[in-house]
Amino acid sequence: MPAKPDIRAVIMAGGSGTRFWPLSRRKTPKQFLPIVSDRTMLEETARRIFPLVPPRRIYTIANAAQTRTIRRLLPRLPAGNFLVEPEARNTAPSLILATARIFLENPKAVIAVLPSDHLIADGAVFLKKMAAAAAAAAAEDALITFGIPPTFPSTGYGYIHYRKGAARKFLGEPFYEVEEFQEKPSTEKAVGFLRDGGYAWNSGMFFWRADVFAGKLERFAPEFHAAWTRMLAALRSGSRSQVASVFSGIPAISIDYALMEKARGVRMAEGNFGWSDVGAWSSLADIWARDPAGHAVKGAVATVDARNCVVFNPGRLTALIGVEDLVIVNTKDALLVCRRDRDQSVKQVLELLAGTGKTDYL
Amino acid sequence: MPAKPDIRAVIMAGGSGTRFWPLSRRKTPKQFLPIVSDRTMLEETARRIFPLVPPRRIYTIANAAQTRTIRRLLPRLPAGNFLVEPEARNTAPSLILATARIFLENPKAVIAVLPSDHLIADGAVFLKKMAAAAAAAAAEDALITFGIPPTFPSTGYGYIHYRKGAARKFLGEPFYEVEEFQEKPSTEKAVGFLRDGGYAWNSGMFFWRADVFAGKLERFAPEFHAAWTRMLAALRSGSRSQVASVFSGIPAISIDYALMEKARGVRMAEGNFGWSDVGAWSSLADIWARDPAGHAVKGAVATVDARNCVVFNPGRLTALIGVEDLVIVNTKDALLVCRRDRDQSVKQVLELLAGTGKTDYL
Repeated sequence: MPAKPDIRAVIMAGGSGTRFWPLSRRKTPKQFLPIVSDRTMLEETARRIFPLVPPRRIYTIANAAQTRTIRRLLPRLPAGNFLVEPEARNTAPSLILATARIFLENPKAVIAVLPSDHLIADGAVFLKKMAAAAAAAAAEDALITFGIPPTFPSTGYGYIHYRKGAARKFLGEPFYEVEEFQEKPSTEKAVGFLRDGGYAWNSGMFFWRADVFAGKLERFAPEFHAAWTRMLAALRSGSRSQVASVFSGIPAISIDYALMEKARGVRMAEGNFGWSDVGAWSSLADIWARDPAGHAVKGAVATVDARNCVVFNPGRLTALIGVEDLVIVNTKDALLVCRRDRDQSVKQVLELLAGTGKTDYL
Repeated sequence: MPAKPDIRAVIMAGGSGTRFWPLSRRKTPKQFLPIVSDRTMLEETARRIFPLVPPRRIYTIANAAQTRTIRRLLPRLPAGNFLVEPEARNTAPSLILATARIFLENPKAVIAVLPSDHLIADGAVFLKKMAAAAAAAAAEDALITFGIPPTFPSTGYGYIHYRKGAARKFLGEPFYEVEEFQEKPSTEKAVGFLRDGGYAWNSGMFFWRADVFAGKLERFAPEFHAAWTRMLAALRSGSRSQVASVFSGIPAISIDYALMEKARGVRMAEGNFGWSDVGAWSSLADIWARDPAGHAVKGAVATVDARNCVVFNPGRLTALIGVEDLVIVNTKDALLVCRRDRDQSVKQVLELLAGTGKTDYL
C-alpha cells in the first residue's frame, strides 16, 4: 500500500467578475460574497476540504489587494501560504509560481488546484472523489481533472473528451483517459457532444504531483518549462523582485491552454457532486430553496400574484405585486431589477456606468 | 368696490393613506412626503398660497401626533393655528371646529378649505382662481367650490353637476350654479357624465364665509347647526374637554355628505390649474419628468432595454434590464416591485404584513 500522499490545495482566489453586480464590485468579486450560503464562496471552498487538507497545507493565490481580504476570511492559514501574484497574468503564471513554491518543499506533494467561486452541493461526495484524485495523481505520471457530467448543451463551458472504456480505478473511482480538451463550442457542436457521449464540462479543478507537473511542462510546453526553471531559481534566491521579473515573463494565458490541452497523460474522473459555477444571478433560482410561488429569496418577501423571482435583499422586506421572472438585487447604494433571462446584460450596465463616469458603482 | 376679504386657509392635513407604501407609513402619510417635488406635499400646499394668504392666516387641522410633524414642516405659522382634532371623525366635525374657531375672530372671514395632498401644477392660475373664489364667497350667500374638468370617465372621484348657462363672474372668473353633487359613479354613469357635459370632478376644495357656512348649516343641515352652536359656546369657554365633548357628538361623516350635497346656493368654478390627487405611484408617470425611454425617476438610473418604469430610489442607483411598466420604490427597510397597473394592490401587501405580524413595515 502506497504512503498517504502529501496533499496541498491551491485555491485560486484572484478572479474578478461582474456578473453578480451590484453585489459584486471591483473590490469584492464573487468569491468574497456570501452568495450561496451565509459564508463567502472562498470560505466554503476552504472549509469543504478541511477534513482532507488541513489549513496549514492550503494555499491561496491572488493579487495583493485581494490577499488582504483573503487573510481576513481564512485566518487559520499560515501567513506564508497566501501567495501573491506580482501582477494579473491569467492562470498559467500563477500555477507555475504556486507549484514551484510547493515543489521546493516536497517535489512529490500532490497539488489540488481549486477555483474559489464554484458551488459543490454534495461536499461528502466531493471529498471522496478528491481523495481518489489525489491518490491517482500520487501514483501516476498524469495530470488529473474532474469533468462535470453535462446536463444540457452549454456553450458557456469548455468540454473534455474522454474514453469511457479506458479507466483506471483509484480508491474505487474510475479515472478515464482524456482524448482532448475542447474550447467553448457552438450550440451545434455542443448538441453533438451530448448525443455522442464521452464529453464532460471542464471544471477547472486539477490535481498534479509537483514533479509530474514539471515533467509535463518539459515534454509538452517547453517554453513554460524554461520559465519554471527560472521560477525555481528565483524562489530559491528569496528575491521578491526576481520572482516578479520571472512571473511577468510568462505568457499571460490559462493553464488549460498552456498545458492541459497539449499534454498527453491526462486523466479525468466524473465530478457528479452537485457542481455549479454559479454563473449569474438567475442560476441561484436552482441553488437557493424556492418558496411555493417559485421565488428564490434572501431576505423577507410579501407577494401578491408574483412568481419565479430571484430576490437578494437580506435584512429588508421585498414586496412583489404582479411580477414574474425577475432578478432583484438590492445593495446599500445600488438596486438591480432585471428580467431573469437577461442577467448577462449586467455587463452593459457596467459599460454604461463607466462611460458616464459613475465609477463609484463599479 | 367691496373691501378686500379677510381670507383664511384651513389646510386639512390629517389624512392617512396606504397607497404610497413603502414610502408612506402609518406615521408618515402622503402629505408629509416629498412625492411630487423636493418638498413635502403639505409644504407645497402652504407655500403655494403664501402670496394670497400670509402664514398668520393659515390654519392646519389634524390629530395630535400629526400636528407635531406639521409644526416642524410649517414653522412660520403661529402656534395657535395648528388646530388639533380631539379624535378622528372625518371632515364634517373638523371643519365645524375650524370654521367656528375663525368665526369667533371674524364672522365675515372667508375660509379656503384645502386638502394637503393634491398636486397643483400651475400655481399662478390657482392663485388667480383662488382670489376669485374668495371674492365670490365674500360677496355671495353661497358655498364655493372648484370642479376639475374631467379628462376621462373616472369612477374614483365624486362629480359636481353644474349649469353651464348660469354663471356669475368674480374677478373675471365665471362661477356656475351647482345642480347636484354625485357620489363616485359606475363606469356607465361616468361615461354618460362626460358625454352630457356639465360635470366636473369634486376637488374637495371649498370656500365659504364663516357666517354663510353657519347659515347654510341652519337651513340645510339643522342637526349640524345645533353642534355648531354648541361648538361656538365650547370654544368661547376655553375648555378643551368641552370642545372635545362637542366634537365627539358630531356624526363622523364628510362635509360633502353633511352639507355640500344638501345645500342650495352652491357655486363652482372650473379648476383647470393642473390638478391631480396623486392617487398612487403609477400617477407619478404623468407628473415627474420622463426620460427618453419613458421612465419617471427620482434617483439615478442605468437602463438596458427597459421602458416606462416609475422609480423612486433617491440617493441610489437603479439599474433596469429588459423590464417595462414597473413601479419600483426603495426605502431604508422595504422595497416594492410592482406592475404599474397593479399599484392598487399595495393594500393587499399591507394586509399580508399585518396578518403575519410584520407590523414594523406598516
